[in-house]
Amino acid sequence: MKDVFVLGAATTKYGKSLLSARELALEASKKAIIESNIKPNDIQAGFVANAFSLAEKQGHLGPIIMSGLGIPDVPASTIESACSSGASAIREAWVNIGAGIYDCMLVTGVEKVSQLDTITATTYFSFGSDYIFEGACGASFPGLYGSIARAHMTKYGTTEEQLANVAVKNHENAMFNPNAHFHKKITVDDVMNSIVVASPLKLFDACPFSDGAASAVLCSEEFLRRMNGHASEAIKIVASGRAGGTGALHQRPDLTTLNSAVLAAREAFKRANLGPKDIDFLEVHDCFTIAELVALEDLGFYPRGQAAKATEEGQTKPGGQTPVNPSGGLKAKGHPVGATGVGQVVEVYEQLNGRAGQRQIKDARIALTHNVGATGGSCAVHIFEKR
Amino acid sequence: MKDVFVLGAATTKYGKSLLSARELALEASKKAIIESNIKPNDIQAGFVANAFSLAEKQGHLGPIIMSGLGIPDVPASTIESACSSGASAIREAWVNIGAGIYDCMLVTGVEKVSQLDTITATTYFSFGSDYIFEGACGASFPGLYGSIARAHMTKYGTTEEQLANVAVKNHENAMFNPNAHFHKKITVDDVMNSIVVASPLKLFDACPFSDGAASAVLCSEEFLRRMNGHASEAIKIVASGRAGGTGALHQRPDLTTLNSAVLAAREAFKRANLGPKDIDFLEVHDCFTIAELVALEDLGFYPRGQAAKATEEGQTKPGGQTPVNPSGGLKAKGHPVGATGVGQVVEVYEQLNGRAGQRQIKDARIALTHNVGATGGSCAVHIFEKR
Repeated sequence: MKDVFVLGAATTKYGKSLLSARELALEASKKAIIESNIKPNDIQAGFVANAFSLAEKQGHLGPIIMSGLGIPDVPASTIESACSSGASAIREAWVNIGAGIYDCMLVTGVEKVSQLDTITATTYFSFGSDYIFEGACGASFPGLYGSIARAHMTKYGTTEEQLANVAVKNHENAMFNPNAHFHKKITVDDVMNSIVVASPLKLFDACPFSDGAASAVLCSEEFLRRMNGHASEAIKIVASGRAGGTGALHQRPDLTTLNSAVLAAREAFKRANLGPKDIDFLEVHDCFTIAELVALEDLGFYPRGQAAKATEEGQTKPGGQTPVNPSGGLKAKGHPVGATGVGQVVEVYEQLNGRAGQRQIKDARIALTHNVGATGGSCAVHIFEKR
Repeated sequence: MKDVFVLGAATTKYGKSLLSARELALEASKKAIIESNIKPNDIQAGFVANAFSLAEKQGHLGPIIMSGLGIPDVPASTIESACSSGASAIREAWVNIGAGIYDCMLVTGVEKVSQLDTITATTYFSFGSDYIFEGACGASFPGLYGSIARAHMTKYGTTEEQLANVAVKNHENAMFNPNAHFHKKITVDDVMNSIVVASPLKLFDACPFSDGAASAVLCSEEFLRRMNGHASEAIKIVASGRAGGTGALHQRPDLTTLNSAVLAAREAFKRANLGPKDIDFLEVHDCFTIAELVALEDLGFYPRGQAAKATEEGQTKPGGQTPVNPSGGLKAKGHPVGATGVGQVVEVYEQLNGRAGQRQIKDARIALTHNVGATGGSCAVHIFEKR
């Protein structure tokens, strides 16, 4: 495998958008191309990350996006892995460039769901679960993550207030992210007093349905060299890990861990020859507050049952010892499904280049992203380093 | 890139099925695993090829299939590239094994559409076109391929009877394929007298909506060696090519060629250091009769405007100089979208191992597959050789 780099990355604003998936994807793609100091013609192939574009009556997004960029000959298939589609697409571009098949690829993640009412959107999302056993029986994702939260509370004594801390922190972080869905500070009381969606999870424990797109240009070392010094902001993809888990929650012996995350992190750390101690900050998949705590334990940043206390103590805040989701995370930056994993890379790219403004993590040099599909049916973990 | 092999491949019967996508995918996957003389545990990762499973309320098929095989830890994302999803998934597994990331992967293509009525199915399929400019305006695929046929007739004098020859041959071939959707010999008159769907295309110029699944196990040379002689039927993937084309037909200067097929074939032939003369038989994407003729010209097997006459003369029949679609093709074997490109590999695997029964192409040693997404927004071409 050759070394692979993120040459440039960019995002649209996340939130409710009047634009279509096609328009959002083109906006992010063009921004990433400009950010990378390349021309569309430099792109040899791409991947699109998307889960629900059929709800907008459009599949086969690759040719639509590449045609819109003026490079219709460039192939691009869509990768779907539920909410981890974005990281999965980054993974496959990493493999393609690492294998020497291409020197420069575009990965664009996109989702457009705000045309759907909340019930329909929840139903669509539940197609990512093992639908006949879960979604169809009423166990949509709030319910499934509610079960995970309840199990974690029972096993480790985690409290609802501790879950709320995650939301409070991520909303605080998003205040400094101009592209975040929410710019609204909240308190533990706000979370505790919000309506119960699936006990113990309340509305403010959940990420929103967001529209949005994010793009990254990946390239080889040879390509960087050919750019002759015009690629000073490239960051290296040090390693990638990917694993699966049971489609349905009822097939698991323990609800307090997502085994796919444990395995994906193990692969990524092994390939990178690094460990949690080496990571300056993380972007993790906090679709619900409980998911951030489970992620920190699955990734090995805290012993089982300890992430809640660490969060309470402020260790995961931007100034803490383990900054988590400085972007605001899925919780407050937003969760445009296919875009989410690519958007995490945008945050890493900006942070490692010292361009994250008021949310900048000081001296950040190595970062990790963690993107989960459904309740852990899929997970991809990537590690990045400033060149 | 390391050498990559198809260790084993298998298919369900194509046609109307009472099974769900999950069940079809598991049937094909299990058959391919048995065919490969491996155990599920030998599989390190996979890809699923699928376009329309949301119509069955199930996305994120990877964990469902891997859990069903008893290997939930094994990651598998879904690749969608409209009707070329199958070949695109084979492509990415080829890249992953070639890069040395994995030694053994499972690629399963699946589609289940017979629960949809014809209008709904046609609409779903049209989501693979540039929907707001094509499908939404009434230009579903029969209309789009009808335009291609009309352009070809105008430019090269191709006749409706010549198109019908393609259907007659492929139905004849499918008579000997136990897994084909249709087992029904037809005549040129049958085609000419069938109802007009989108002039000049008639019902018998079109492939059916099929349910079905197909699976292939891909592996590295090291993996083959470790099998100690129990992999005598492995075939080598000599090369792969992949390219894009405009999403919409109206963006093209010439309707009589799919540029993505020209480019994908160029890449595949170049990587293989082979040309059309070296190919013993082809499986091409004959979603409509005209598509087979255009494919043969795009792939360089016949000069522009000559494939119709060659077909008329029987050159593309099993005993001819260029056997095309001995399986029966999409036209008669059937077209379960996500499965189609993987199913082509099943045919190649059986043919190159001399196990195609009455449809066996004599002395077949090198074969090519050609799988198109929509009207050529995507295309992937693979070349295989018996070890």
